[in-house]
Formats: sequence, structure tokens, C-alpha cells
Amino acid sequence: MSSFGTVFRVTTYGESHCKSVGCIVDGVPPGMDLTEADIQPQLTRRRPGQSKLSTPRNEKDQVHIQSGTELGKTLGTPIGMLVQNEDHRPHDYSETDLYPRPSHADWTYIQKYGVKSASGGGRSSARETIGRVAAGAIAEKVLAKANNVEIVAFVSAIGGVSMDRNPTDPKFQKILNTITREQVDACGPIRCPDEDIKEEMVKVIEHYRDAKDSIGGVVTCVIRNCPIGLGEPVFDKLEAKLAHAMMSLPATKGFEFGSGFYGVQIPGSKHNDPFYYDEENGRLRTKTNNSGGVQGGISNGENIYFSVAFKSAATISQEQPTATYEGKDGVLAARGRHDPSVTPRAVPIVESMAALVLCDQLLLQKAREASASIVA
Amino acid sequence: MSSFGTVFRVTTYGESHCKSVGCIVDGVPPGMDLTEADIQPQLTRRRPGQSKLSTPRNEKDQVHIQSGTELGKTLGTPIGMLVQNEDHRPHDYSETDLYPRPSHADWTYIQKYGVKSASGGGRSSARETIGRVAAGAIAEKVLAKANNVEIVAFVSAIGGVSMDRNPTDPKFQKILNTITREQVDACGPIRCPDEDIKEEMVKVIEHYRDAKDSIGGVVTCVIRNCPIGLGEPVFDKLEAKLAHAMMSLPATKGFEFGSGFYGVQIPGSKHNDPFYYDEENGRLRTKTNNSGGVQGGISNGENIYFSVAFKSAATISQEQPTATYEGKDGVLAARGRHDPSVTPRAVPIVESMAALVLCDQLLLQKAREASASIVA
Amino acid sequence: MSSFGTVFRVTTYGESHCKSVGCIVDGVPPGMDLTEADIQPQLTRRRPGQSKLSTPRNEKDQVHIQSGTELGKTLGTPIGMLVQNEDHRPHDYSETDLYPRPSHADWTYIQKYGVKSASGGGRSSARETIGRVAAGAIAEKVLAKANNVEIVAFVSAIGGVSMDRNPTDPKFQKILNTITREQVDACGPIRCPDEDIKEEMVKVIEHYRDAKDSIGGVVTCVIRNCPIGLGEPVFDKLEAKLAHAMMSLPATKGFEFGSGFYGVQIPGSKHNDPFYYDEENGRLRTKTNNSGGVQGGISNGENIYFSVAFKSAATISQEQPTATYEGKDGVLAARGRHDPSVTPRAVPIVESMAALVLCDQLLLQKAREASASIVA
Amino acid sequence: MSSFGTVFRVTTYGESHCKSVGCIVDGVPPGMDLTEADIQPQLTRRRPGQSKLSTPRNEKDQVHIQSGTELGKTLGTPIGMLVQNEDHRPHDYSETDLYPRPSHADWTYIQKYGVKSASGGGRSSARETIGRVAAGAIAEKVLAKANNVEIVAFVSAIGGVSMDRNPTDPKFQKILNTITREQVDACGPIRCPDEDIKEEMVKVIEHYRDAKDSIGGVVTCVIRNCPIGLGEPVFDKLEAKLAHAMMSLPATKGFEFGSGFYGVQIPGSKHNDPFYYDEENGRLRTKTNNSGGVQGGISNGENIYFSVAFKSAATISQEQPTATYEGKDGVLAARGRHDPSVTPRAVPIVESMAALVLCDQLLLQKAREASASIVA
Repeated sequence: MSSFGTVFRVTTYGESHCKSVGCIVDGVPPGMDLTEADIQPQLTRRRPGQSKLSTPRNEKDQVHIQSGTELGKTLGTPIGMLVQNEDHRPHDYSETDLYPRPSHADWTYIQKYGVKSASGGGRSSARETIGRVAAGAIAEKVLAKANNVEIVAFVSAIGGVSMDRNPTDPKFQKILNTITREQVDACGPIRCPDEDIKEEMVKVIEHYRDAKDSIGGVVTCVIRNCPIGLGEPVFDKLEAKLAHAMMSLPATKGFEFGSGFYGVQIPGSKHNDPFYYDEENGRLRTKTNNSGGVQGGISNGENIYFSVAFKSAATISQEQPTATYEGKDGVLAARGRHDPSVTPRAVPIVESMAALVLCDQLLLQKAREASASIVA
Repeated sequence: MSSFGTVFRVTTYGESHCKSVGCIVDGVPPGMDLTEADIQPQLTRRRPGQSKLSTPRNEKDQVHIQSGTELGKTLGTPIGMLVQNEDHRPHDYSETDLYPRPSHADWTYIQKYGVKSASGGGRSSARETIGRVAAGAIAEKVLAKANNVEIVAFVSAIGGVSMDRNPTDPKFQKILNTITREQVDACGPIRCPDEDIKEEMVKVIEHYRDAKDSIGGVVTCVIRNCPIGLGEPVFDKLEAKLAHAMMSLPATKGFEFGSGFYGVQIPGSKHNDPFYYDEENGRLRTKTNNSGGVQGGISNGENIYFSVAFKSAATISQEQPTATYEGKDGVLAARGRHDPSVTPRAVPIVESMAALVLCDQLLLQKAREASASIVA
Repeated sequence: MSSFGTVFRVTTYGESHCKSVGCIVDGVPPGMDLTEADIQPQLTRRRPGQSKLSTPRNEKDQVHIQSGTELGKTLGTPIGMLVQNEDHRPHDYSETDLYPRPSHADWTYIQKYGVKSASGGGRSSARETIGRVAAGAIAEKVLAKANNVEIVAFVSAIGGVSMDRNPTDPKFQKILNTITREQVDACGPIRCPDEDIKEEMVKVIEHYRDAKDSIGGVVTCVIRNCPIGLGEPVFDKLEAKLAHAMMSLPATKGFEFGSGFYGVQIPGSKHNDPFYYDEENGRLRTKTNNSGGVQGGISNGENIYFSVAFKSAATISQEQPTATYEGKDGVLAARGRHDPSVTPRAVPIVESMAALVLCDQLLLQKAREASASIVA
Repeated sequence: MSSFGTVFRVTTYGESHCKSVGCIVDGVPPGMDLTEADIQPQLTRRRPGQSKLSTPRNEKDQVHIQSGTELGKTLGTPIGMLVQNEDHRPHDYSETDLYPRPSHADWTYIQKYGVKSASGGGRSSARETIGRVAAGAIAEKVLAKANNVEIVAFVSAIGGVSMDRNPTDPKFQKILNTITREQVDACGPIRCPDEDIKEEMVKVIEHYRDAKDSIGGVVTCVIRNCPIGLGEPVFDKLEAKLAHAMMSLPATKGFEFGSGFYGVQIPGSKHNDPFYYDEENGRLRTKTNNSGGVQGGISNGENIYFSVAFKSAATISQEQPTATYEGKDGVLAARGRHDPSVTPRAVPIVESMAALVLCDQLLLQKAREASASIVA
């Protein structure tokens, strides 16, 4: 359904052609400075039309806070937020509407709901993510205040061009340890901080764009300074909630954290992260971090890092042999120009979902800590 | 926390050294034949000690239904189930207890809960999965009756020895289309149905066993005959719930479905699954299935298939330099013999979690369908 | 928190002085005709300023659907709705702001959230109920289509002037069996259909209004044609959910259903509702209905009826000796004119909450019924 | 369904004739002393057969902790608990099984679930409350440690014999302020601390017992030392959760808190609770407490008190004209002897449900407080 979270919870609404899209964020801590200026930057980073690598539509996507703040401070009550849809008229029906778009949600939405919206897959549009990003911006602010938590995502693969995500690779580790959003954005629209391959990535995208085709990619995200103890075993382990969050995003095909799929090849003697005493922090830490900052479903204070696979965009400009809703063979060609790769735009969305998970888990752990203190 | 599901919901309890482990399954359909004989087989498949490839302990793991059935029929009320722990005395403290085991949950459990159980990571033990498997067996029975749903998992990789999981690979597709649990079990304890590599996998495990080490692997699972329309966008898309379920299992590092991480390299023109009219079923189907049976978060009737990465077991018999809880450097050696690979045993557990997700989503979709009929 | 319901779920936002108030309704059946015209009537009935018995403010309260419909049909996606606040500027601070208003939420909100909104108790304003009423109108439409469900509430007591709510009273039974909303509204602003006492009720309210005081009352609600089988024991029995819903409304002090508090005096031999075979419906019915249409937490097809106690409005125009936030004794006098009785306005709000409960339970029961059919 | 609570959550299982009844309690604070000795007393108070006023069966009802503790300390993991059913064989079918018992759940359970259990209404048996009481005992222990919270319930009415529950009545106030469980139990099986009426109550029960009939009553409960700030507006106001909890108990017909239904007659000028500065506590308190310790859905530190109406027991020994399941008129006479009033036995059950609500709300508020501190 359209709610996510237990004590810090977002509920979203809206599809492509309705009046507005938005969300209600419940459980926001009271007494926090909060205005649209805190929320707009990530919405702007999410916005299409920022370069020739992405779709040329230029939606304004200005967020309007409806409730839950007064004189720039949160009240502890739900934050309603909305972004107007610029064009909220369902479009005229045309020839292309005879076809369920291949690998889109047009056909499954009809199967599930029995109705067909002008936008085809209704809520499956990327526009639905606006509510998530707006809510995520609030979560991030809480996390930054809680422990100076930093969440930074970047493009780590486009098609077959990929960073080495082996957790022991020095370049990869350095990026995880130091990368900032400013640096990611400074990479240009490709949002890949690996200087050795980013130009190649751009060429891959341009190649598929020119071929009226599309290509997928991988977004990697690192969370630094995550408080220790987050995650609620056994079903709500931290990685399980992160996986849930990421796989709820449009176009995702996979999630891995820490050593990930690569890690199955590393024997236990090398995969295990030995403990050592860290004088600076006055506590145990691990020498390596194949665990990806989570052990037994609970954060251990090391960097949390994970990667999300995004498939090639389903909408392509070239003709596709397929069938109509009625089952008649035919050829579908999408109108207009389309994003050859949605992966770079997914960067702030991945960050937002990570923030929503962490903020909810942080509040839950605060309840656990307090309860332990009570009975000690 | 320890509950999973919305209208078909399992709640589990138990850790390694308590009296029993078990679960309550709420929302079980009434009027269904159900006895222990329906549940024991998967518990037995889950049980350790079945071969020299796995840990030699031989727990009996007999399930006892406590409630919710009468004269072998379900009442629609919660099914309580339990399995006795054979040895439920917390063990004596010893030298090894001075060390948090690397890449185990010992240290994070203490950080989160502030207490240390004899078993170290408390609920992080694989024994916790008994309640999941018992509940999953009930879910499977419902699914089989609903649409003859078949859920079959198998080992697709051990260490670097891996089946080709490219969705267009003919051998892989054939396995997905035809594999049965009987065939998986007939493969021997390795549970890999690929004749070309299974012996090699066994050798890899034996190699690491002899080296007092461990190695990871991948479990792939296929769901056939899944009803169309399951999944609850936007946050509870079917793949999001499957990812949540799988990543809540001990030792998992990654989840992918359909084309997965490999799919990011396939251009949209090839990744898109074209529709055709299938006379036999009297409806649209897709010619290819890179989507993995889910589009827009909703099942489309094609095979659902996904893979789960399991890391190398953290408990190894060789000595590991690490630090004590107090931060003193030292060397830890686990007592006894240990599973060099937990991956084959994970097969029924993955199936069980898949069944729990599907059964809950099936009931939710039945509510949606009924509500649509009401207002039509 | 601000969400209510499991599969048909409303989430509300907004307080007195923010930009808008509204809600998101998730789980609305697809394919249903729905426009603002379906929702506005109950919002208008809820609106203050309709007579000299209630507060003179005349807010417009026009609802605007933001999402989830297209060309006047629901899509099965969340319905976002909002109502602008006419005056959304936090008012200037003044002398009265030094005092937590007695029996308002001003002080407890500060204790809980640590912040003070201009409106005092933030979300405790009756304006918060707009989102509930908008959502309830959708639920009612589903229920009407499902089984011609009728939900009608009315004022049954004002101060000490009360209808006889003894379940065996013929006049009370007749009202429960036949009353319509049109008849309730035709009673005038007092909304009491008992001709014998309604004038007296008006006089009571006028008395307290003239005394710059306020007075409480009781709203009774009947649900006719409720489908059999609604309610989810053991914790979500139908009466438990109704009680939860009603006691979440501002100013409520009690809930009773069926024979209620009066029923404790009726011996079992008379309180028990004997069964008989009803030829017309082709099923068992009960001769009496002390049970109030619910047995064992599950609807039995008889009229569901319940009553909700509303306290005297806390805001009164006369001076009240009390203390400031800082603990200094003083006298508070509310500015302006105030509703001497909120009870009549609560009528559509009670109906709305009842509809929200029933619609959610209806969908859940549809899932149960479908699952029973599957395994039969 | 069978779970209650958000972060401190109980899930129960079991009906009259299964192997055992019990529960899983999730979210229990770690590091707390806990053995069966903490839980048994309330189970024993709940047990039938303690006097000639109640049913003569003498079940042992010994609780067995299955998990979640080690060496007498909680681990923070779920506490599984069970109580064996002494006779868990479904009884032989007999003549009485032809009849749905009037005002029992026999008929509605069949309507909802489509199956008939030997015990008739399946989970509607009072035996189901064992899991609630066991869980409540843990909640109470947490609450006692948190703030020395005291929860005491007692019988305030039997049939027409009732204490004056007017909130301004001095005797009632004194009882609310001082009553202990020991005093309640010292009253004898009637559990009414009002010396002036308790003998009369006993006579009422004896009268109906001798007439092979039954009679209802009211249980009033007071919560002292409740922390300030509990309750989660707008839907999960503290009184809404208490109402939900109480109305989920078998045989309940009504819930009121603070001034309750009586309060609708008190004008605002008298109903409002004026503030004053309390030197002892160094904070504002209210001079009167018509609010019942909750304002705006949030506890204010004053005594929380509420009353729950219990109907006359539906099982009576005298013959009742009714109809069979098939609709044939006939006469039903229950076998054996039966409780003429379940009200006194409900006392510990009401306390337990109150504790479950408060403990969950306490943990939630700890999360709120922590989050407010973070962003301050």
C-alpha cells in the first residue's frame, strides 16, 4: 500500500495526470526548524530535464508544506506536502493506447485494478517518487541532527561499465569513506565519481540514446555515522528494511549490501570482519567491513553501503513488435523523446528511501534504549 | 520485530537455548485439512545433520500444533506451533565467551539490547527460522489449493562455481520451468540441479571444510502458477516484500529478481518483454521474462524467479585474530565442527519465506478483487 | 498516530491555522464513480455556522480531490483530498495565550511535544475531523454499493434531557429501524428525531449559551444492513474497532453498544437474544437485539447501534479561575462566541468514523471469505 | 486479528479445547528480571473456581515461559508463554450442539469462518484471555519500574446495585486514590471495595444463581502515576486505545472514562478542570479530574479512571426457547453449572489490558521524547 514506516511514517498519493502529488509525514519530531528550503534541494536533484542525458521536460516541482509547522518549526503533527502537476489533464486517447507498453505496468495494473488510467500504469510513474523524496528530506534532517548521519548515493555502473564494487578495492573504499553530494553533482549529470569510467558511461548512454534505446545501471549508496543498534530483528533487520525500501522503487531489479553477491566467493576466514579496539571512539570496531555496517540485522557503526540495480528504461523511441490489449499483434512506437537512462536521476531517490528507513529505525531504537534504561 | 504479514501473519519466538521455538500463524483460512504431517516435511528438509556437508548435530525438530485446528481441520483461528529445543540449558561460560565472534551478531546484540545471551546473538541463530518454516508450510498449502502454486528453490552457486543465471540461458530457463523439490533433493545434499557443476560445488565445500573455513553461495527460487495481480504498490510491491522477506534471513547479502544485476547491461529493446496472445490461457503473456514475473510491482502470471546471496558462514574452526569484548587483542577458535556452507540448508527456508509473502498478498488481492466487484 | 485502518486506510493531516487540512485514503476500490459531489454533503453537514445553536463562523470547506480518480472514476490508487483553511495565519499572541485552557489539550500537547502552536492543542481542534469526514464519505459509498448499508446518527441526549435508550423501548426501536439522515436534518440543528424532547433540548442549549456556558450530549448511531461476518477477533472485534474510532474523536467520554451500560441490569434470561428462522431472509435471526448486532465481535446482520458521550465544550465565554503556564493563578476568559454544544455537529463525524471501520472490516472479511473458498 | 500493540505487542493463540493457550510478547525491554513468579499471580486471580460465586471448575493454569529470558533476565527477544489446557479433547457431539447458544458467538463464528468448533465460538471463550493476562503481567512490571504505575480494577456495579461513579463523589474519589489490589481481593470474591453495597451485590448474584440465571456488572479501573504525555493523536489517543482494548474483551457492552456518560450533564463551567500550581510536583495539576487523566488524547498525570460494562453471562442453566442451526424452534438448556456473573473475574483481565495499552504507549512516547531531544 502507500504507507511506509512504523513510528516515522510516510504516506504518499498521486499519479502522473492528477492535480498534485504529495505525502503526509507522520511522527516528525517536534521543535525542528523546517521550511520548504529544507525539502526543495532533493526534489530539484530528482527533477528531470537537467541535461541532455535526461528527458527534456522541465517540471518545476515546487513543494508546498500544508501543515505541521508554524513559524518555521515543526509541531510534532503530520507534515502534509504537495507538488502541483503542471499538466493534470488526462491526455487524449490515441493509437498508442491500444498497446500495453512492454515491461511497463500498464497490463498488470489493469489486471489488478480492472481500470485503465490515461497514464497507463497509474502510480507506477516515476512521478510517484516525489512524495518519497519530500519525506526523505525531513528524515535526513533528523538524522543529521541525531548523529551527523551522511547519506550519499552515486552511479556505480551504466550498462557494462562498472566500478569495482569489491569491498576491498581501495578506490571503492575511498569513495565510500569520503564522497559527498557536492562531489557527486560536480561529476555532471552522470553522477559517477569514478573519473576513470564516467566519460565511458556518458558514451554508453549517448550510444543508446542515439539508437532510440535505453540502458540500465547501478546506484551505490553509503551511510556514514549511522548510530549503532538500528534494526529490529528478526523480520525487520536493517538490511531487510533497506531492501524493502529500495525494491519498492520503480525499475529496480536487485539489492545487495556489504560484500553483496560478490561476497559469496569470499571464504569466511577472509569475509569475517575482525574486531579491534578503536581508541578514538573508545569502542570496538571492525578492521574490514564486508558486513556493510550491519551484523545480525543491526547497525554496528561502520559504513553501511549497498547497491541497487536499475533496469533499462522500458520506454524507448524505437518500434517494438508486441500485442494490443485485445491480443492482436502490432508494433508500438513511443511518442516523444525519453530518458535513455533513469539511473542518474535515481540517486536522490535512493538517498531518500534510505533516510526514511533509518529515521524510523532510529526512533524505534530510542524506544528500546529508553525501555532498557527503565528496567535496568 | 517478530511479526511478518498483514492479513496472513506469522509471529515467531525462540532462540538457541530456550525451552522451545515456534510461532503463531494468524489469518489461516478456515476449513482446511491441516496436521503436523503437512508441516514436518519442510522442517525436516531444514534440519541440520543430514550429510557430511552440513553440521553433524541431529536435532529431531518435531513440530507440535497447539491450537487452531480440530479433528484435523483449521478453525480460522491462530495456529500455535512449537518445536522443543533438545538442549535448552544455557552453556557454561568459557574462554570463547570473552570474544564477540567476528561477523556474528554477538556484539551488535549487546549494543542494541545491552544484555548477552549464552548463545551470543540471541535470535540471530539459524534455529530461529524454524517458526518461519512451520508457518511457510501452511502458506504453501493455501497457495497450492488457490492456484496450484509451486515454489521450488535450489542452490545456484557455491563460492565461484555458479550456474549461468542470465535469464535467456536455455539451461537456466529449463530448470526454472521444470524443477521440482523431489529433483532438488535427488541432487544430494548440495541441492544443485545443474549436473555440470554440482560435483564441483561439492568439492568447493569440501575444500573449505578441510581448511576449517567456510564458503558462501546463492539460492535461486522459482514460483510457478502465481496468480496474476499480487503485490500492493507503491511500497508493498511484490518484489519489495520478497526482498524484505529474504533479506530478513540470517547470512543474506543480496537479492535480485528477474534479470537482476545482470539485467542492467541489457538494453531496453531487448530487456522489454513483448506481449503476445496465448491461446491456451486465453490472455496476453510475454514472450520473454526478464521481468521475472512482476511488472510495476504486480505479478503478471509468468514465472517469478529470484536469487538470494548467502555469505560464508561466520563460524569457522580455524583461529581468528580479533579482540575481546573489552578490546584486548587475541585469537578466537570456535569449538566443535561447523557447517562449511549454510547455503544448501537455506533452500527450504527461502521457499517458506516466499510462501509467506505470496499467501499474504493473495489474501490482500482477494480483498481488492471483491471490493472492485462491489462497486462495479 | 494519524492513520486508521488496515486495508482501507485513512491518513489525515492539518490543524487549525495551517494552509489546508485533508487526508489520503488508501485501498479505495477501483472503478467506482467518485467526484467531490459525493464527499461535499457530509462536509457541509459537519460545517459550523449553520444555526444560532452553533458557532457563527462560516467556513466554506470545499473539498478538492487531488488524485486517485480520472474522468470521475476511482483508479484503485490513493485518493488525496484537501480543504483550504480560510485563515491560515497563526494569530498574534495575546493575554489569553498565557493560560492553558482548562480541559483543552493545550497543556498536554506541550507536555508531549514540547512546543506550543498558536492554536493551542494543535491537532486537537475539531477542524482535524474534516479529513475523517471526507474519507468516511468514500467508505459510505462503498458500503452502500456492497449491501445497501445505511448509517444514520442522531442526537439522543443533551445534558439531562435524554431519549430512553433501553433497547426494548418501542420508540427507540422504531427510530433505530427507520430513521434517515433526511429526517435527522429535518429536525433542525438539534438533530434529535424525538419530537417529545427535542424542543426541551434546544432550550437546554439556549440556557447554557445565554449563561456563557456549554453542555454535553449523546450521539446514537444505527447501522442497518451490515453484512454478516464483519469483525476480526480477538483484538479487532467489530465493537472494539468502533469504540477505538469513536473514542478517537474530540470531546468523547464514553461508548456503548447494544444494551450498553443499561444492559448490565438485564438478567441473562432476558438479555440473551433467542434465534428464530426468518423466512424472508432464509436464515436465522434474533427476536430481540440486546447484542446490538454484534456477537463474539462479529456482526450478525441485525442493526448495529451504539451511543457516544460528548462532554460539554471546554471553551466557554465566561471567566474561569485557573493558572498560567508558569503556574500563576489568574482568570481566563475566552474571546468571541463559542458553540454551547458540539454534540449536534458530531452527528456526521460519528457516521464517518463508523463507515471507515465498516469498510475496512468489509474488505478484510472479503479476504477471509475468499480464502475459505480456496481451501474448501 | 490476534495481535495488539505497536512496539510492545502481544499475539495470542488458543481456544477452549486445544493443547495449550498462550502468547508471544514482542518488544519486552531487555535486562529485566522475569520468571513465571511474576506472571502467575494475575493468572491465578483470573482463574475460575475460586468461590461459590463463580464456576466450580478448577483449572491449574500454570504458565510456562518458553523463550526470551535467560537465567531469569529478559533478553529483549520475544517472550513465548503457554498454559496447558487440562482437557483438550473436543467433546462428543450431543443434543445441545444442535443449537447456536443465544448471545454466544456460535452462530457468528460459523457465519464468518464457515466451520464449527466443538467449543462453539472458538476463540470467543474466556479462556482466550489467558494470553492477555500473561502478557499484561510483563507490561505491568515495566510500568512499575518506569514510574511506579499502579493499575487497580474493582467491581463497581452488579446488576442494579452500583457505586456512585459521579467523579465528584467523595467516596468514589477516595477509592480511586487509595485502592490496592490487596484491598480488592480482601473484599472477597465479589471484589467490590464499597462496604455499603458489596453484600447486596453478593445477594444479587446469589439470587440469579439460584434462579439459574445470570447478571451483568461494571468493572472500574484506576491507573495512578501514569507518566505524562502518553497517547498518540489523532487516531491513537490514549482513551481510544483503552476503549479498543476493553471492548475487545468478551461480554463487554460499554466503556467510559473520566466523567463518562454522566459527564454529559455537567456544564462546561463545572466540567472543566482548572489548573493550579502544585508545589510538591513542581508543575501544573488540575483541581478536579473530570477529564479522567487524559486531555486531548494525552495523559496529564492525574489518575486515569474508566469503567467497563459487562453483560450478563450468556450461558445460563435454565431452558431457553430458541432455534437450531437448521432453523427449527426448540428449547436449549445448558449442561452443568455456570458462572452467574463473570464480572468479578474480569478484574485482572481489565488490569492486564490497561497495562498492555500503557506499556506500548510508554515506549512510543519514549521514542517521541528522544526524537524531540535530537532536533532541539
